[in-house]
Amino acid sequence: MTLKIYLSGEIHTDWRDQITAAAAGLDVQFSAPVTDHAASDDCGVAIMGEEPDKFWHDHKGAKLNAIRTRHGIETADIVVVRFGDKYKQWNAAFDAGFAAALGKSLIVMHGPDHQHPLKEVDAAALAVVETPAQVVDILKYVLDGKLP
Amino acid sequence: MTLKIYLSGEIHTDWRDQITAAAAGLDVQFSAPVTDHAASDDCGVAIMGEEPDKFWHDHKGAKLNAIRTRHGIETADIVVVRFGDKYKQWNAAFDAGFAAALGKSLIVMHGPDHQHPLKEVDAAALAVVETPAQVVDILKYVLDGKLP
Amino acid sequence: MTLKIYLSGEIHTDWRDQITAAAAGLDVQFSAPVTDHAASDDCGVAIMGEEPDKFWHDHKGAKLNAIRTRHGIETADIVVVRFGDKYKQWNAAFDAGFAAALGKSLIVMHGPDHQHPLKEVDAAALAVVETPAQVVDILKYVLDGKLP
Amino acid sequence: MTLKIYLSGEIHTDWRDQITAAAAGLDVQFSAPVTDHAASDDCGVAIMGEEPDKFWHDHKGAKLNAIRTRHGIETADIVVVRFGDKYKQWNAAFDAGFAAALGKSLIVMHGPDHQHPLKEVDAAALAVVETPAQVVDILKYVLDGKLP
Amino acid sequence: MTLKIYLSGEIHTDWRDQITAAAAGLDVQFSAPVTDHAASDDCGVAIMGEEPDKFWHDHKGAKLNAIRTRHGIETADIVVVRFGDKYKQWNAAFDAGFAAALGKSLIVMHGPDHQHPLKEVDAAALAVVETPAQVVDILKYVLDGKLP
Amino acid sequence: MTLKIYLSGEIHTDWRDQITAAAAGLDVQFSAPVTDHAASDDCGVAIMGEEPDKFWHDHKGAKLNAIRTRHGIETADIVVVRFGDKYKQWNAAFDAGFAAALGKSLIVMHGPDHQHPLKEVDAAALAVVETPAQVVDILKYVLDGKLP
Amino acid sequence: MTLKIYLSGEIHTDWRDQITAAAAGLDVQFSAPVTDHAASDDCGVAIMGEEPDKFWHDHKGAKLNAIRTRHGIETADIVVVRFGDKYKQWNAAFDAGFAAALGKSLIVMHGPDHQHPLKEVDAAALAVVETPAQVVDILKYVLDGKLP
Amino acid sequence: MTLKIYLSGEIHTDWRDQITAAAAGLDVQFSAPVTDHAASDDCGVAIMGEEPDKFWHDHKGAKLNAIRTRHGIETADIVVVRFGDKYKQWNAAFDAGFAAALGKSLIVMHGPDHQHPLKEVDAAALAVVETPAQVVDILKYVLDGKLP
Repeated sequence: MTLKIYLSGEIHTDWRDQITAAAAGLDVQFSAPVTDHAASDDCGVAIMGEEPDKFWHDHKGAKLNAIRTRHGIETADIVVVRFGDKYKQWNAAFDAGFAAALGKSLIVMHGPDHQHPLKEVDAAALAVVETPAQVVDILKYVLDGKLP
Repeated sequence: MTLKIYLSGEIHTDWRDQITAAAAGLDVQFSAPVTDHAASDDCGVAIMGEEPDKFWHDHKGAKLNAIRTRHGIETADIVVVRFGDKYKQWNAAFDAGFAAALGKSLIVMHGPDHQHPLKEVDAAALAVVETPAQVVDILKYVLDGKLP
Repeated sequence: MTLKIYLSGEIHTDWRDQITAAAAGLDVQFSAPVTDHAASDDCGVAIMGEEPDKFWHDHKGAKLNAIRTRHGIETADIVVVRFGDKYKQWNAAFDAGFAAALGKSLIVMHGPDHQHPLKEVDAAALAVVETPAQVVDILKYVLDGKLP
Repeated sequence: MTLKIYLSGEIHTDWRDQITAAAAGLDVQFSAPVTDHAASDDCGVAIMGEEPDKFWHDHKGAKLNAIRTRHGIETADIVVVRFGDKYKQWNAAFDAGFAAALGKSLIVMHGPDHQHPLKEVDAAALAVVETPAQVVDILKYVLDGKLP
Repeated sequence: MTLKIYLSGEIHTDWRDQITAAAAGLDVQFSAPVTDHAASDDCGVAIMGEEPDKFWHDHKGAKLNAIRTRHGIETADIVVVRFGDKYKQWNAAFDAGFAAALGKSLIVMHGPDHQHPLKEVDAAALAVVETPAQVVDILKYVLDGKLP
Repeated sequence: MTLKIYLSGEIHTDWRDQITAAAAGLDVQFSAPVTDHAASDDCGVAIMGEEPDKFWHDHKGAKLNAIRTRHGIETADIVVVRFGDKYKQWNAAFDAGFAAALGKSLIVMHGPDHQHPLKEVDAAALAVVETPAQVVDILKYVLDGKLP
Repeated sequence: MTLKIYLSGEIHTDWRDQITAAAAGLDVQFSAPVTDHAASDDCGVAIMGEEPDKFWHDHKGAKLNAIRTRHGIETADIVVVRFGDKYKQWNAAFDAGFAAALGKSLIVMHGPDHQHPLKEVDAAALAVVETPAQVVDILKYVLDGKLP
Repeated sequence: MTLKIYLSGEIHTDWRDQITAAAAGLDVQFSAPVTDHAASDDCGVAIMGEEPDKFWHDHKGAKLNAIRTRHGIETADIVVVRFGDKYKQWNAAFDAGFAAALGKSLIVMHGPDHQHPLKEVDAAALAVVETPAQVVDILKYVLDGKLP
């Protein structure tokens, strides 16, 4: 059993690296959005031409990023969505809703201060955790039936 | 052609009432989440029993509300999602992602200050507007082909 | 918003009648399996001819009943599954799994003594209740946003 | 032709090992739930934190196990569900219903004493057997067209 | 509960009329292919122009008839397929396969002499009967739970 | 049997009116795109604000029109696509492809001079005709089994 | 591009061997039903126990064979169905309908004498041929764009 | 992450070769229609027999080509559709509509003179470009997050 896992959400800390490192040796394949914030913001105009209006600048980039994110979510067995401390992170919640509608197994990661505003997202999840280590514990259990 | 429209998102202003009133006479059916904030927060424990832990208090309520919101989104032709000025509103973005994955026609409503953080949600929409009047103009055009 | 509700499971008490009576006036449509136990057991051979082997006797009846139960579950918005005190009730759990795979909103009703063996079924539900009155409270809340 | 087979149900006898051993050399891939009963019961709280309430203790574990069981069923070509002599085994019947709704080929294994209460589950199956050897005979026939 | 029923297959006897007459008063809606054999054979060229080659003559007609038959099967809850004594009736078996793949409840009607060649079709059915009266008995039971 | 029919394609002649008039009395419901060319081109900016760049002017309008056209195609039983003598009409071919992928019954209408470039579109159709009268003949035959 | 091809229908001549041999070197994977007629007829009772009634004898076998045939059709890119000169061959037409409803590319092979009774099946096909060599010509063209 | 890409549309310039060459080393798999115009036009009659009527000549070929094009689109992650300067190219727009309905990521390539007639196709795309180099820039960005 190989598990394909999409790591969605917050891109300002190294949580993806922590999970990937701790999961070394497990039969898993990770995918993720482009986490270079500047490239992610400017990809549309860099490739398809400048836009004077910020809305269309963002629009071109967001659609281009959607090629990658939709592919990642649609081919995943498990979608992990992490909410951090900063920014609106509506794209993370959007990904969670997208994954839920497709019937993907959803794991949500966030600190206790975000519990109330994330209650609808958590309600759609099969697991709610706080740390990357817990995500890896889940992967180990799902794959091998071993508790930490 | 009857259009079924689900009005998702912000519950602290009267934007739903504005749309419903201005759409009088159109061949439309509106549905929406429970907009009584207190009832929405406490419905789970009020019906199924108290929970000492806030997480499960919220969990019971969020799942109960999901019966209504999933039904509203799944049976809608158009899903309108409004983002207001306050709160995290992750459930609104979750609904938008859920609707997008189901192939629903998505209309997003928000002020210009939220343009950048909502770029991924806007990129999945068929229309991005700022006011309830624009939503009704869209409905009139979609139904009757008449411009405002 | 009309809600279509399928009432699956235990057929030896009057819980369906309690729900239907208490839901009078709500915008709901109920469906259910044939609850006449003898008819349900013998329908296959009564219509399509006797079988000397009990397995095929049951098989003919179970398939005939499936015409009704599949239709009820597939067209429902909400599937309520009640587990009673007696019998194996594997068909109830089967219906719950069938409904879950179709993405139906699932409400499970059972007493506290069945909590542990039903944990997987409960985990797939949006609400777990003990009484018919709670089911009706849920329907009222989902339809009208009113708490009991 | 490689067949992917999910072995659901009873976890207290060695029927999975019997099938796997007898199927050596066949082009099959087996998957199964976690069969360590204690780990399966406690996985949720072991990884995501203790719960004083047994319902939520079980709930966390059941959802975590669902990540594995849903994956196993959804990726399987054939789902084998065995009902043993003890316990309620509602999760086995739930899995059978889930598999049936997804259109999976269903094989049900049980003793003759359970024939009547399992009639609805059997009616959804393509084969009903009593022994692990029969399951392997079926796999050999489906793969190679050879009778035992 | 209204049942929509498509009556496929043999068009040379009055079995559809017998069912429709005997089902008077039941909450059912019947649909069927065009049963005027000559019209069914010639509809394509009559409307869209003559074809010198019999293959294309038939092709045009068969595709035109498919507009009606696909609609009938796709919107049905139950598909009844009758095999008569004459002709190849491959379109009847084709309809049965089409209905089975869509998950429709399938009822097959045929005499005992066709039992062996129809075994694969029967194996996909929820009921196998010999007479129109049995079909109506099934409809009455499915709708009202009453045995004949 | 009510047939829902979407009339896609050329908007510069009165072919839709001819079909609608000739189909009077049939159990059909027609829908169509907005056929006011100016409104269709400008709807986006008229409702959601001017765009200096023609690409985005068109983009806003095309997406707004998609709310209506997707709804029309997705809810139709039959999609009729007419190709006229002028313009590129790529949106008509796009609609045909969209309808084909959804499994809709497709009727294509065009003159003999367009036969070769439309061969792929025709190959996906259940009927290829030249005149509105032929479309109505088809509808009459599909509904009532009567030849013209 | 690897093409997966299911070879359905007539089992009394060596047409499958002819195709397989002539397709040597192409990037194709063939699957097929069990073509040992006796094994196919008796597999159910040989593995799951004797049945005194011929109907159930056949029923057990037909369901067991369905595990293989459904898998073959569902995982195929192309389904080839051959109708021979003898027998009713309703299972072949059933497979064709099943494949058509799943949107598989369908190739039908039969002699000119069966043209009229197979018109509905042919109308659902992307190619109608008479010989195994034509099937292989099609595979070569689809894979490599080379004409014979 | 391997991306499967179908290159649809114009077959008279070497744009596919340019993309394939420039994408050397990327984790991509390309597929495309048969681009030998003469073979594509005549494949049907070359394999399945001459037709005196040009409509059926084309029909046989178009259906045969559909085996390849449908497979290419259905198995692709990304569908690139190029519109050139000549011909009607309705099959390109048909492919775009087909891909859109299946939820594929759509990239449209065309010159600025075709902007207005392609507005509905562009509105369904995640990227609109003018050159093969831009397509490859997109693939590099989607795969590796690197801007050109």
